[in-house]
Amino acid sequence: MNMRVGTMPHGKRNLITDVPGVRVGHCTVDDEACHTGVTVVLPPPANPFLHKLTAASQVFNGYGKTLGLVQVDELGTLETPIALTNTLNVGKVHDALVSYMVELCARDGVSLTSVNPVVCECNDSRVSDIARRPVGEKEVRAAIASASEDFAQGAVGAGRGTTCYGMKGGVGSSSRLMEIDGQTFTLGVLVQSNYGASADFRAACLPEGLAESDQGSIILIVATDLPLSSRQLKRVLRRTSVGMARLGSYIGHGSGEIAVGFTTAQPEARGGSFLAQTVLREAQMNIPFRAAGECAEEAILQSMWHAAPDTARDGSRIPSLREYLTEKEESEK
Amino acid sequence: MNMRVGTMPHGKRNLITDVPGVRVGHCTVDDEACHTGVTVVLPPPANPFLHKLTAASQVFNGYGKTLGLVQVDELGTLETPIALTNTLNVGKVHDALVSYMVELCARDGVSLTSVNPVVCECNDSRVSDIARRPVGEKEVRAAIASASEDFAQGAVGAGRGTTCYGMKGGVGSSSRLMEIDGQTFTLGVLVQSNYGASADFRAACLPEGLAESDQGSIILIVATDLPLSSRQLKRVLRRTSVGMARLGSYIGHGSGEIAVGFTTAQPEARGGSFLAQTVLREAQMNIPFRAAGECAEEAILQSMWHAAPDTARDGSRIPSLREYLTEKEESEK
Amino acid sequence: MNMRVGTMPHGKRNLITDVPGVRVGHCTVDDEACHTGVTVVLPPPANPFLHKLTAASQVFNGYGKTLGLVQVDELGTLETPIALTNTLNVGKVHDALVSYMVELCARDGVSLTSVNPVVCECNDSRVSDIARRPVGEKEVRAAIASASEDFAQGAVGAGRGTTCYGMKGGVGSSSRLMEIDGQTFTLGVLVQSNYGASADFRAACLPEGLAESDQGSIILIVATDLPLSSRQLKRVLRRTSVGMARLGSYIGHGSGEIAVGFTTAQPEARGGSFLAQTVLREAQMNIPFRAAGECAEEAILQSMWHAAPDTARDGSRIPSLREYLTEKEESEK
Amino acid sequence: MNMRVGTMPHGKRNLITDVPGVRVGHCTVDDEACHTGVTVVLPPPANPFLHKLTAASQVFNGYGKTLGLVQVDELGTLETPIALTNTLNVGKVHDALVSYMVELCARDGVSLTSVNPVVCECNDSRVSDIARRPVGEKEVRAAIASASEDFAQGAVGAGRGTTCYGMKGGVGSSSRLMEIDGQTFTLGVLVQSNYGASADFRAACLPEGLAESDQGSIILIVATDLPLSSRQLKRVLRRTSVGMARLGSYIGHGSGEIAVGFTTAQPEARGGSFLAQTVLREAQMNIPFRAAGECAEEAILQSMWHAAPDTARDGSRIPSLREYLTEKEESEK
Repeated sequence: MNMRVGTMPHGKRNLITDVPGVRVGHCTVDDEACHTGVTVVLPPPANPFLHKLTAASQVFNGYGKTLGLVQVDELGTLETPIALTNTLNVGKVHDALVSYMVELCARDGVSLTSVNPVVCECNDSRVSDIARRPVGEKEVRAAIASASEDFAQGAVGAGRGTTCYGMKGGVGSSSRLMEIDGQTFTLGVLVQSNYGASADFRAACLPEGLAESDQGSIILIVATDLPLSSRQLKRVLRRTSVGMARLGSYIGHGSGEIAVGFTTAQPEARGGSFLAQTVLREAQMNIPFRAAGECAEEAILQSMWHAAPDTARDGSRIPSLREYLTEKEESEK
Repeated sequence: MNMRVGTMPHGKRNLITDVPGVRVGHCTVDDEACHTGVTVVLPPPANPFLHKLTAASQVFNGYGKTLGLVQVDELGTLETPIALTNTLNVGKVHDALVSYMVELCARDGVSLTSVNPVVCECNDSRVSDIARRPVGEKEVRAAIASASEDFAQGAVGAGRGTTCYGMKGGVGSSSRLMEIDGQTFTLGVLVQSNYGASADFRAACLPEGLAESDQGSIILIVATDLPLSSRQLKRVLRRTSVGMARLGSYIGHGSGEIAVGFTTAQPEARGGSFLAQTVLREAQMNIPFRAAGECAEEAILQSMWHAAPDTARDGSRIPSLREYLTEKEESEK
Repeated sequence: MNMRVGTMPHGKRNLITDVPGVRVGHCTVDDEACHTGVTVVLPPPANPFLHKLTAASQVFNGYGKTLGLVQVDELGTLETPIALTNTLNVGKVHDALVSYMVELCARDGVSLTSVNPVVCECNDSRVSDIARRPVGEKEVRAAIASASEDFAQGAVGAGRGTTCYGMKGGVGSSSRLMEIDGQTFTLGVLVQSNYGASADFRAACLPEGLAESDQGSIILIVATDLPLSSRQLKRVLRRTSVGMARLGSYIGHGSGEIAVGFTTAQPEARGGSFLAQTVLREAQMNIPFRAAGECAEEAILQSMWHAAPDTARDGSRIPSLREYLTEKEESEK
Repeated sequence: MNMRVGTMPHGKRNLITDVPGVRVGHCTVDDEACHTGVTVVLPPPANPFLHKLTAASQVFNGYGKTLGLVQVDELGTLETPIALTNTLNVGKVHDALVSYMVELCARDGVSLTSVNPVVCECNDSRVSDIARRPVGEKEVRAAIASASEDFAQGAVGAGRGTTCYGMKGGVGSSSRLMEIDGQTFTLGVLVQSNYGASADFRAACLPEGLAESDQGSIILIVATDLPLSSRQLKRVLRRTSVGMARLGSYIGHGSGEIAVGFTTAQPEARGGSFLAQTVLREAQMNIPFRAAGECAEEAILQSMWHAAPDTARDGSRIPSLREYLTEKEESEK
């Protein structure tokens, strides 16, 4: 599928993992009742609690259950992997990340007594029996263990059970390269797409008669190696909303739309009373702004393109974007 | 021009003044050096200080000089007309509104010792000598005096000197009707459009070679007669960003993008310790959300459609949307 | 102890449960390694998911892990009991509340697919082995089952292991009566106190030589039956900071200081597109403001007054306020 | 008067101007009807538009008319002097700062087309005929011209007509020295005090029978040479509320309580795409936090201590703190 969005070049994989050191892992749960999972985005430091990264969050519509944003907003730092799962499973995944971080810190000789996991969610109850909460410590550990620079998109991990504009959604990703002062930086986005009503989709490619209300959610994880302050990163996150709007969403009431981002540029070293930092000059901010908008739009399309069709709990069929486009192409021959 | 945006019906005039009681007035300044002005949006109460309206604001990108938002955010009320002008003229227009309100209250037997004017702005220095600040008390009073339900769009009042996506911008407006429980409510938007780079315009109708950076600003005034709390109104305002994104903007760094809104539903009566209010049930919020997105997108297009071409201070020509579309149509014959 | 704070009269019990229908329950965990627990504040509706209450939050210092605030801030509603526990246990308590709510809704014939538990925390690792996270579903259910209008204060439940100004802290509560237009309303505060350095305590009653850094946290739960909007409630919450400051805190960097509040005045009924509401006139807000400040200050003192002395994990002694005052009184004879 | 607040040492003058390069100027207007004025805080750069300073704002209670905070919050920079005046005069003072900055930039060869003045205010209508707005360009220029490291406190400039806890308020200031890693940094606060009801004053020194409602406002300007990000600076500003609370305020509904701060540490140089910055490590933030709390409390007391008694427009007498304390001391002999 040619889904070229915008004008900026993308990275080697066109994935969030084009940002050096970032890895993504999934664990998918598929049993009789549940079709859900967990996806983790691992920042580069082996132990992010010991080398915190500058971070920020942006809530577009707060009808959502994302955990951990209070501290991210206050301190502007990320100290754990970011996990994505389903709405009712966030507590268990939070606890699994606590357990993981306690162990990681113990290995580094640190007795951990406080940590702030970031756990995001979408509601996949159309496809999965959400009240069962099958994602626990085992699944989170499996997702972390599987994390790599190459990862599947579509209906896997936290994207296993999501729907987007009336079609199958999932996990999608995209990246952009930014040339600044002769250096090349990368910005990548990973989405868990679960929002939008079919009637609003703006890609002129939608099966008719799929009208539904706009509910669900979308989570957008932004990673970059561009040196930014948390204030600047928050400004960048705000531009991911552009990608959603361009695909037709009007930010529905029932849709928890939340972005969380970090820069890998300057992991916090320990010791000393002052930190020396480099940040992008404000006048250059349009470069990452444009990258964020393009990546968000394309990541959503990728999440749909890679997702196979599915069947809802009530037996209704959830078509895929790819399926529809093939069909449409054939009918036009 | 057929610029039908979205699916909801618009009001009689397709203007913000379709909201009963709302009036709009302009005063345009056109002399040798200055091509600027002031536009006022008057809420229905004859004296809004004595009958405050529920209000809210939303800053999408705060590189702007809008005055009065601190109190609007805290108390959720509007107590003056809203004025729009150019960036360096906001102080004088603020003072003119103070003067107007002191006089208005004196007429009602109230000695005014505190008032919070809301003054918004865009930067029209490409066209006008902005440092001169020609909009004073006389011009503000003239704009108020001229306020009516019918008003000009395009390069008038606060829109006299603005540019949008490399073409002439200005003041534009649109409205939508909302059916809820057998009642019809109206939501209207008025914009002062001064943002966007030509290369980003998404209407497939742009003269090539007009590339510029995205700076300037956009102000979006939202009025409705739907009963909403200030929290709900803020949620509605947030959806106007959808209109901008759909036309191609990625919310540029240099663009002050700010929405201010009010509902005319329940002007605050005086006396008593409690207020009885009606508000829309949260589950119905998608109705005004959709209306806000559609109105914002169309109001921006209207602001461009009604604006004549212009010449910048540096002698360069600023084409109009209408001019271009005619030209394009003819070349395609 | 005569710890009369302020000038307003308190309710019958001088507890948050003076607000009609509000109940509080504890479950304390005391084993070899852990001295911690959970406290729940139950709003009046039997099933708050079906009859949501107007709510708000206020973060004074966000170095904390409170869960659930994103949705409270967006929608202005509370739909579960509020639970308080220790920092690393919030995920498990969140999951326990999900389980409880799923069951509660099933009893009412509702298949719950989304819910937003509010879980607050303080760090009790000075006294308890916090990495063990012993508070699970059983403990949360026990706390809920024990909830009543009379409840213990001091080192119980979520206050079992906390310290405050270098002395033993815990759970404390206070209430105030507000006369408005001939009606009596109640505002109550419950705190989990775990903040402040001994050298900063302003009660002229502190054992010397207890200097420590100001870390830990404080959670302040505010309940009232006064009809307020979520915007107004947030304004009331902001005034609880006054109570902390008056006792000497300067809002330390390491202290997560967070307030969450709700009004029982108008549980949301189901059905219809509009809600009729009564809210306090803004000009009367000084009444609940003063009540919130007084209650917060006194609730903190109560949490210390009711707490017995304790021993930290490192063997150091944590004195109690009561113990010290007795000692001081005797030495002055 | 011995009004030693806190434990940290103050700077040479115990004024905000102990921060190197910061200057303060007043212009007082005293005619038959008006007793008001303007105070300016000048940051060190000769032209702050060309060398912007890291800045932040914090609104404790937004019932106020302070201008310019939208851009300070977005960009985290200050680009003009900060002016303080009375509530209805902010528009004229804003315009005067625009005029001043246009001229300043013209001298530096820059044609200024956009600038964001910060103008704060308190309501002095108890003493002055506020509707007249006598502070214009001449007065603002006079205040700027008079700016120096030594400046008067009490009933001068923007403090000419304010009242505080039922006594005469005004402009007050205080500073604290902070030792970090062998270097000495300074933090200073300047307040315009106009808040608090007499019955709430906590200094055990208040004339009885002065009960009034808590309205008015307080503005707190914070300057420091400690290198802080705008996020960190905002955290510091939040701690100034402690000073108000300790003197008895509960942040009254009618009181606009607003803090604005800047650091002189690293004026933005021009050129290049990246900025090299030093910031304080977050774990050291308790040092400026404590300094901000102490300075705010003492600056308020200084504003009252230096203010002479006054007469209100209704003929009632406004006593001074100094007067009262002397009286009280004598009666106790």
